[in-house]
Amino acid sequence: MSTAAIVVIGNEILSAKIADENGPWLTRELRALGVEVRRIETIPDEIPLIVDALGRAKSQAKWVFTSGGIGPTHDDVTIAAVAQAFGRKVVSEPRILGMLEARYGDRMNAARKRLADVPEGADIDWHDGAYFPVIVLEGVAVLPGPPLLFKEGFGRIRERYRSAPLFSRAVYLALGEGELAEHLDATVAQYPQVSIGSYPRFDQQADYRVKITFDGRVRDEVEAALAFFRRRIPEKCILRED
Amino acid sequence: MSTAAIVVIGNEILSAKIADENGPWLTRELRALGVEVRRIETIPDEIPLIVDALGRAKSQAKWVFTSGGIGPTHDDVTIAAVAQAFGRKVVSEPRILGMLEARYGDRMNAARKRLADVPEGADIDWHDGAYFPVIVLEGVAVLPGPPLLFKEGFGRIRERYRSAPLFSRAVYLALGEGELAEHLDATVAQYPQVSIGSYPRFDQQADYRVKITFDGRVRDEVEAALAFFRRRIPEKCILRED
Repeated sequence: MSTAAIVVIGNEILSAKIADENGPWLTRELRALGVEVRRIETIPDEIPLIVDALGRAKSQAKWVFTSGGIGPTHDDVTIAAVAQAFGRKVVSEPRILGMLEARYGDRMNAARKRLADVPEGADIDWHDGAYFPVIVLEGVAVLPGPPLLFKEGFGRIRERYRSAPLFSRAVYLALGEGELAEHLDATVAQYPQVSIGSYPRFDQQADYRVKITFDGRVRDEVEAALAFFRRRIPEKCILRED
Repeated sequence: MSTAAIVVIGNEILSAKIADENGPWLTRELRALGVEVRRIETIPDEIPLIVDALGRAKSQAKWVFTSGGIGPTHDDVTIAAVAQAFGRKVVSEPRILGMLEARYGDRMNAARKRLADVPEGADIDWHDGAYFPVIVLEGVAVLPGPPLLFKEGFGRIRERYRSAPLFSRAVYLALGEGELAEHLDATVAQYPQVSIGSYPRFDQQADYRVKITFDGRVRDEVEAALAFFRRRIPEKCILRED
């Protein structure tokens, strides 16, 4: 089963300075690749909390992605936390160090040397012209926080995650949840492998009252659950499907 | 210390059907009230995962807010999870049941009766004309997922959370993180009570290279940390403050 968890390391998000772009973007990307996202956790830039989140993420999902906390300053603690989570040392990677020395020359300093730090034994994706390495250890991919870099970094490793597609259908209704619940219960009982969601709208913008969604790995099951549910609803209350 | 955790119960968010609005909105609201948000967790509509998230949220923050999973359908499991997290029974609240009976009359059914279910002993905020109750148990406020309802529900309880203000300053620089790191380290060492963040930009839209933020409960400390840091940076590299 292809599942993922996203750990967003972000004091700037928790303090409402910026809204997280990376979590929603990666959720859409993973969904399109057939990967089911099981949790998104936004936590402070603090090693014990990152280690704790990584342990939970690994126990609940096959793949883990971290966003943020990469760089040369005091608040960049993700590499140390990933190393600690898997009982690895942090080591200076010679190939990265060589590229940094070529880039900075006599402007090289202690802070810039930190950019070569990796958890021992990590897989490193870096190529000429890239601004930073993407580090993967035990299924945890470590990506930088700035959205431009986050997206570019994920792009390098994207195809590793492509999986069997997820199928999703939806039907929009002119009935409220209170009238639909028994028909949903019957459909859930009949199609336990299909994940069924019910989403009411209460705002004036919506042209429907409830959207019912049907999700699964097997297209025929998803279609059958939708058809089963539809048959129980008066035709005039069904506004549209997608 | 006024701290909060947000638990977003949202299959629809994890499956990329919609982006979460409530987490970012509530983070801004709480920040403005002086409440420090310590974590935002988005998890599936599954009781064991909600119970687990609530336990963690309670252990790391004073106040907890849940978003979603409220209503009459099979996927509305938040009330059951909150009750289970605190070892309470789910009971039908007579006052809510009375209002539902007045609203639905002979269209009352088993699903609609579920809207009166609350964890035993919960505090209930409901008034004439309100569409739903806001339920609070052991510092956990239970809010519905649709943003319109989420915001209206939080508005009813907002003033309970007002706290000493948080102060935040920022300075925008024309230097990269590699040159700033030693000055940041010095400032962090001198002002341990001030939370200092460093946020580089790599996109063409930005008119600066790094934004440094200073956050704390004591205004004088925040201002002093900013001033201490500024004195270490060449004046021509300081673009602006806010």
